[in-house]
Amino acid sequence: MTILTPTLELACELIRRPSVTPVDEGCQALMMKRLEAAGFALEPMRIENVDNFWARRGSEGPVLCFAGHTDVVPTGPVEAWQNGPFDAQVKDGMLLGRGAADMKGSLASMIIAVERFVVDHPNHKGAIAFLITSDEEGPALYGTRAVVERLRARNERLDWCIVGEPSSTTLLGDVVKNGRRGSLNGKLTIRGKQGHVAYPHLARNPIHLAAAALAELAAEQWDAGNDFFPPTTFQISNLNSGTGANNVIPGELSALFNFRFSTESTEEGLKARVEAILNKHGLDWHIDWSLSGLPFITEPGELLDAIASSIQAVTGRTTEASTSGGTSDGRFIATLGTQVVEVGPVNATIHQVNERVLASDLDLLTEVYYQTLVRLLA
Amino acid sequence: MTILTPTLELACELIRRPSVTPVDEGCQALMMKRLEAAGFALEPMRIENVDNFWARRGSEGPVLCFAGHTDVVPTGPVEAWQNGPFDAQVKDGMLLGRGAADMKGSLASMIIAVERFVVDHPNHKGAIAFLITSDEEGPALYGTRAVVERLRARNERLDWCIVGEPSSTTLLGDVVKNGRRGSLNGKLTIRGKQGHVAYPHLARNPIHLAAAALAELAAEQWDAGNDFFPPTTFQISNLNSGTGANNVIPGELSALFNFRFSTESTEEGLKARVEAILNKHGLDWHIDWSLSGLPFITEPGELLDAIASSIQAVTGRTTEASTSGGTSDGRFIATLGTQVVEVGPVNATIHQVNERVLASDLDLLTEVYYQTLVRLLA
Repeated sequence: MTILTPTLELACELIRRPSVTPVDEGCQALMMKRLEAAGFALEPMRIENVDNFWARRGSEGPVLCFAGHTDVVPTGPVEAWQNGPFDAQVKDGMLLGRGAADMKGSLASMIIAVERFVVDHPNHKGAIAFLITSDEEGPALYGTRAVVERLRARNERLDWCIVGEPSSTTLLGDVVKNGRRGSLNGKLTIRGKQGHVAYPHLARNPIHLAAAALAELAAEQWDAGNDFFPPTTFQISNLNSGTGANNVIPGELSALFNFRFSTESTEEGLKARVEAILNKHGLDWHIDWSLSGLPFITEPGELLDAIASSIQAVTGRTTEASTSGGTSDGRFIATLGTQVVEVGPVNATIHQVNERVLASDLDLLTEVYYQTLVRLLA
Repeated sequence: MTILTPTLELACELIRRPSVTPVDEGCQALMMKRLEAAGFALEPMRIENVDNFWARRGSEGPVLCFAGHTDVVPTGPVEAWQNGPFDAQVKDGMLLGRGAADMKGSLASMIIAVERFVVDHPNHKGAIAFLITSDEEGPALYGTRAVVERLRARNERLDWCIVGEPSSTTLLGDVVKNGRRGSLNGKLTIRGKQGHVAYPHLARNPIHLAAAALAELAAEQWDAGNDFFPPTTFQISNLNSGTGANNVIPGELSALFNFRFSTESTEEGLKARVEAILNKHGLDWHIDWSLSGLPFITEPGELLDAIASSIQAVTGRTTEASTSGGTSDGRFIATLGTQVVEVGPVNATIHQVNERVLASDLDLLTEVYYQTLVRLLA
């Protein structure tokens, strides 16, 4: 029988609970039991069909919060897995199973790091907190977003937050995420007038009317980015017009588009510029806008310094702070004015079959979390 | 019981045969019986599932050919008709029934005009011919197109052709069609590279790549038309790209487009210009081209003069020669070097329920055909 480290032992216990989003399947109860033993005050927050909890140790500030999710994405075809997706095991140095990287491994590292820290520093400064949800991989309506609103309503202070998302790309700690771009969706409709292709003077072809405006939108430089963000990007993901018949001029064109935007642009500014381009081309248009998330940035400061120093000390690597990639729950927490950084294992296999992570990386991650706690709260 | 004129009597007999395309339902046998009695040599040409016939009276040139079709479009909802679609009758001065305008009325007028003409001019100059099909409203593969190829193969001469298509817009003879625009279809594919909207630098968005080229194609002036044709038009009828998901950059864009082109442009020239615009924009493209018909024009001359004079004499109207509208079988006959003009009743109700035509217009049309015969062959 293999003897596992405490972090890997706990990671396996969590992976064996098949908590496919939004089901928690007892993961949070397991975490809360450990945190209660470590002196945390627990506050389960089931909201609609989603299990969440808030836990805190210490009544003063500053507050360092660990955030993450117990839910995992579906397994995909089970027969494509070398081992069962929920048969957690360490094999040839790899921890295998759904959630190993995203993000039950990180949750285990957080718990073990905190347990060690409170033993070593029972009278630590400030407070340690946990904000855990089981709805990060799903609609994310009743998870972190909803918990954050409750914390905001009671004016709960969060100075620093470490999110356990798998931020590393090749080696543990090579990249942490100190912000994310904003995401703004639009559903554009351009109205024309249907007709017969033989009589174009009696119709108004929305494809012809829209083409120049779409070309201008695609060529537009929205901003130049800044030290923390690449330039804002605009992408049309879907474009549809036509009845299928090749002799009918269609009456309408529809398009879906998305902005990933830096802190150099604002939601209102991007909307106004899109609308100005459509108006300039004299189009009869309508847009349904939907904001997925505002951009946020954690500039170099106490939290990022503590994390970078810890990664340097544990791995010998100089971490890169990046704002690339998709959205995460960090965007909700950042609205509290919190410094938010994502620090987790290598993300190469997330959402795939045979999800796995180097077993020793999770022990290194535990040490990174531990040293960060020491630097900020010892 | 109403006493009908010979033209209306024959039109009713034809309408009562429910010859929904490509079925002839005995219409051609009825016409051939009358033509045989008038001294015509008959040549039925059933090609695949389509009944056609060729008939000729006279062995010398010049040859004046009457062309048309016995098939009709489907009735649509029968209960929406005031009378049964095949219950031909004259009511309140209107001839009612499917095919009244398109084009059994014209066929009746042709037969009656020719019968009278050969009685009055048994030793007429040149020859009179008929080219009749039962597949003009359908795929039109084994109808006029196929008959014309047989005539071409044996070097049959056709100097003039009157097609019975309903050319009039408001009053009988106000418009005749002395040509039709060409029609050229293209199915365009623009290839890009699929990716995630958050990482556009790893993808190539075919919508963005194509937009400027589509704008240029839509704005292009292909030609200025000429005395007989309006300028060539280009219309994109269908445009589709995207997976449906709003976070995926699509890998491909497809579009259907159509040219209606004048004799100032050629098939090859239009293809080359489209391809040059796509190349100028550096696109990875493919087009499946399909030619529906070349443009043809019958310039003012013996046939058009004879028809215009006859319309003037019969109706007091100055006819307008037009090349507008969709395609017709005239495009196949014109390839023999024939002067082709479409002369028929008012087209306001064709392809609709309650198709009808002013009964007296068919008698006027018979007279127009008769006088044209006199002017050309008496």
